[in-house]
Amino acid sequence: MKLVRYGAVGAEKPGLVEADGTIRDLSGHVADIGGKTLDPASLATLAKLDPKSLPAVSGKPRLGACVTGTGKFICIGLNYADHAAESGLQVPPEPVVFMKATSAIVGPDDDVLIPRGSQKTDWEVELGVVIGKTAKYVSEAEALDYVAGYCVAHDVSERAFQTERSGQWTKGKSCDTFGPTGPWLVTKDEIKDPQDLKMWLTVNGETMQNGSTRTMVYGVAFLVSYLSQFMSLQPGDIISTGTPPGVGMGMKPPRYLKDGDVVELGIEGLGSQRQTFKADV
Amino acid sequence: MKLVRYGAVGAEKPGLVEADGTIRDLSGHVADIGGKTLDPASLATLAKLDPKSLPAVSGKPRLGACVTGTGKFICIGLNYADHAAESGLQVPPEPVVFMKATSAIVGPDDDVLIPRGSQKTDWEVELGVVIGKTAKYVSEAEALDYVAGYCVAHDVSERAFQTERSGQWTKGKSCDTFGPTGPWLVTKDEIKDPQDLKMWLTVNGETMQNGSTRTMVYGVAFLVSYLSQFMSLQPGDIISTGTPPGVGMGMKPPRYLKDGDVVELGIEGLGSQRQTFKADV
Repeated sequence: MKLVRYGAVGAEKPGLVEADGTIRDLSGHVADIGGKTLDPASLATLAKLDPKSLPAVSGKPRLGACVTGTGKFICIGLNYADHAAESGLQVPPEPVVFMKATSAIVGPDDDVLIPRGSQKTDWEVELGVVIGKTAKYVSEAEALDYVAGYCVAHDVSERAFQTERSGQWTKGKSCDTFGPTGPWLVTKDEIKDPQDLKMWLTVNGETMQNGSTRTMVYGVAFLVSYLSQFMSLQPGDIISTGTPPGVGMGMKPPRYLKDGDVVELGIEGLGSQRQTFKADV
Repeated sequence: MKLVRYGAVGAEKPGLVEADGTIRDLSGHVADIGGKTLDPASLATLAKLDPKSLPAVSGKPRLGACVTGTGKFICIGLNYADHAAESGLQVPPEPVVFMKATSAIVGPDDDVLIPRGSQKTDWEVELGVVIGKTAKYVSEAEALDYVAGYCVAHDVSERAFQTERSGQWTKGKSCDTFGPTGPWLVTKDEIKDPQDLKMWLTVNGETMQNGSTRTMVYGVAFLVSYLSQFMSLQPGDIISTGTPPGVGMGMKPPRYLKDGDVVELGIEGLGSQRQTFKADV
């Protein structure tokens, strides 16, 4: 299933996306997409519905973040060997873990605000993993049982805030609108192999990132297991698994986003996002 | 006012604490303590209530975390000059900011679990600042208008997870139960000067930390303003403002917590916490 949240900011309704792109209204069955909706039993119930029995949504509504009520937006740093190289850093012996503020989460096509004082706002297409049930001390072998599905996540980053303003990356990762997710939450049954998905990103139509989850250093199952040794993962939590090469910071000279730039990004089977970047005046 | 959440885990009710310690039930007036309850208008309405008109709560109920629905638990590192020195680090030119997972939040007297594999679980008494209304790009002069009040926060930390397991501190700060808050949210009108509060912490009755918010490098108003330049702060968000000297990591030799240890900590005017540390077997 492709699950979606559509409608105005703060008033999104849950929906199901058909193969032809039609959105079907799920609000007669679940209140929203997030938390308890994501557990295996709830997803199984939704999977049994006949989409044709659900009201079709007319027009092209705005899409919200594909999951609501996310408690933790956990990000993995330097998880593609060639991205680490372009950042001038080694692949770490264990995953680098940091948090993006959940207040940064927005819809896949919402405007992204370039924060006041920013000179180095950068892009990062990433595979997002959405947790479906509470995971604590789980093994790598069972880790995927705790995953509800996948989405495109854009880990927008301000490099000066991240690395030039005193330790820890949070400041450069947590700005409002720096966490578009979606367009859909694609349930894991639709993704044959999360470690073999093409991913891409363009800026004003020019290809910047063109990679595959195949070159991820620490894969999805490992990451879920690994993180669950440190903290419980809960339904609706998102793990953003790192970005392949091609970020602005890695270019010679570096290239950053400015007011009016349009970024499009996508992952095979998970749909695409399109954001206009705007100065937060 | 001293606002409190009392009752079983997940079923806490809102209350008001009188000078003699009696808890009065607020559930006839607000659903919980958090989010919209914390805006200035809501707090003013609660302040007008005659406590004697509210039902007295009998017995000694468990206390929950003093605020619910916290979206961000933002922590400041190395914010006391002498704590930086004992950690072998310089006071940073700007605040060091990191996140603690909100899933780490527990009540002030709940057991704290020493995670599996932990060898270096450590203590940190901190002044917690609770946001009352959305703050973005606010000045230092107006920053306290956005603060609902203060609480004791225990920034429990696993030092090996924090600093020896590949970059970024999140892994050592986010373990389940590593964020006791409370016993109360004390509204800011009761705290004459947040930069002049004694704070202390004992382990098995032995004093380890004995400081004052007077030696904080970056004060509360500065921090609220500073953080709001990077991300919006929202009602119920907590800023844990750093710890004074006396943590286990700074001792010669270092000293860490083990199964059965009892930690008590408090801040002048904000009450105290008491946790038994237990191995998470």
